[in-house]
Amino acid sequence: MKYCYGVDIGGTTVKMGLLDTTGEILDKWEIITKTEDEGQAILPDIAESILSKTKERGLNKEDIVGVGVGVPAPVTEDGIVNGSANLGWTYKEVKRELEELTGIPSVIGNDANVAALGEMWKGGGSGEKNMVMITLGTGVGGGVIINEKVITGEHGAGGEVGHICVNYNEPDTCGCGNHGCLEQYASATGIVRLAKKKLQAESRETALHRESVSAKDVFDAVKAGDQVAIEIAEEFGQYLASGLVNLAVIADPAVFVIGGGVSKAGEVLLPFIQKPYQEKAFFSNKEFRFTLATLGNDAGICGAAKMVLD
Amino acid sequence: MKYCYGVDIGGTTVKMGLLDTTGEILDKWEIITKTEDEGQAILPDIAESILSKTKERGLNKEDIVGVGVGVPAPVTEDGIVNGSANLGWTYKEVKRELEELTGIPSVIGNDANVAALGEMWKGGGSGEKNMVMITLGTGVGGGVIINEKVITGEHGAGGEVGHICVNYNEPDTCGCGNHGCLEQYASATGIVRLAKKKLQAESRETALHRESVSAKDVFDAVKAGDQVAIEIAEEFGQYLASGLVNLAVIADPAVFVIGGGVSKAGEVLLPFIQKPYQEKAFFSNKEFRFTLATLGNDAGICGAAKMVLD
Repeated sequence: MKYCYGVDIGGTTVKMGLLDTTGEILDKWEIITKTEDEGQAILPDIAESILSKTKERGLNKEDIVGVGVGVPAPVTEDGIVNGSANLGWTYKEVKRELEELTGIPSVIGNDANVAALGEMWKGGGSGEKNMVMITLGTGVGGGVIINEKVITGEHGAGGEVGHICVNYNEPDTCGCGNHGCLEQYASATGIVRLAKKKLQAESRETALHRESVSAKDVFDAVKAGDQVAIEIAEEFGQYLASGLVNLAVIADPAVFVIGGGVSKAGEVLLPFIQKPYQEKAFFSNKEFRFTLATLGNDAGICGAAKMVLD
Repeated sequence: MKYCYGVDIGGTTVKMGLLDTTGEILDKWEIITKTEDEGQAILPDIAESILSKTKERGLNKEDIVGVGVGVPAPVTEDGIVNGSANLGWTYKEVKRELEELTGIPSVIGNDANVAALGEMWKGGGSGEKNMVMITLGTGVGGGVIINEKVITGEHGAGGEVGHICVNYNEPDTCGCGNHGCLEQYASATGIVRLAKKKLQAESRETALHRESVSAKDVFDAVKAGDQVAIEIAEEFGQYLASGLVNLAVIADPAVFVIGGGVSKAGEVLLPFIQKPYQEKAFFSNKEFRFTLATLGNDAGICGAAKMVLD
């Protein structure tokens, strides 16, 4: 029996898993992400954790196929990161450093791309070779998978679906400096922005509070039949559908998998996306499958492991 | 020495080529596309032409690696076309029929995708593994190539870049039924549309004629320094750049290759695209290479041949 490690580095914790080569998670744990001092302890901490887990389990290094790692930043094909604000890293040769520390081969990928790979392997996109995962979190990330491979792109910007322009008249600025990015409407932050604008101009009764409203509040109110919340969700769905329509005429996947914090609202989300999608879509790809991500926090671990097994 | 045939089926003529396996075109000819009677003579005519050329050259069927064919329609992975308005075809098993007629293995692809493959192999995208070709003709077509493979998509709609939405407020309808598709601004027809609108509202002197203006007229006038024409070209460039910005955050290719009839205007075209592209692009892919297609009408023949050699 062979094994591999899947590692998902986040800004607060590093999620780690030991898997067998069928993708079964045998063990799962977290360590703290030490972002101080330009995050220089992060890789040594991961290496130490891997080596001690290997020992604890009575495994030899030869039993370990490799270590897959998802990083919240663009990653080159050589496993180099040119800066990650969340981790404090500037230039970092992640693959080389980690291999030197562990003596085990490593594969490094962008976290959103890695999560997409996990969902294709074991989650909402299971059985498909062509899928797009949209991660609706603080921002909007994504992974475009064609023939089972993630599109990373020449500048590591493949699958940066949060920055598809869905409104050429938006006056407000996206974090990236542009205007009208999908992220401005479909992320948790974007939904709050839509909600606040709506609530300011609203005189009808609603369960939502003008001063303090979250994406979760909006979808909870939708479930309770709150008309104002429903209209906010419709606006969110219109913009997200516009982004997906553009994705569909480029990548034409078999399925869209919706993940990230916002997707925890559940099935209630899907009609808000599906209806405007079908209205706007190019005629040859109107019939699309939309599904929710199913792996939750394990998507990163699974996808990272999948990279080393490929 | 082994050989292959590259076939590019258009609505008026079928362009055919005999190539060696290095991609050298040894012979090149055309036959008429007989679109009458649901285009039932098209494949038999192609087969006859291939068999007689093989005989004429003193080749054996065993010397022929295969026949690659580009078709103006979406094509499934099995080489089936579900209708092509330009050829009169309804459902047609192109691969099976052609193989039965010739006794030679065939590979069938969408013509825009096939041309992109040709430009990657021998033209403007030569040496790159990731490129996007945009064909600015009567419509706007394209081919998205990732790791040397064209993205065909689950519904044959991969690389339908003419239907990226670049204006969510467009009142006029695209041929596809949607509003604001790239094709409405960046095709030869789209440029004429922009020009007519501009000229209607224009009191300045210009070399362009209100009643009869072509895309070529516009770029000829640009070359002569005509200010009205320059502003039409700027509008065209703004919309095309918006489409490319969306392509770049999804596919992130190394190079954009601009082809099709409009690209015959030459290098004068590129600054009109590059300047707004750099203004609008996502920060990590602002530095892009734009280049003109170089194979002209041979792109289809070359790309079709490349399919059978892959």
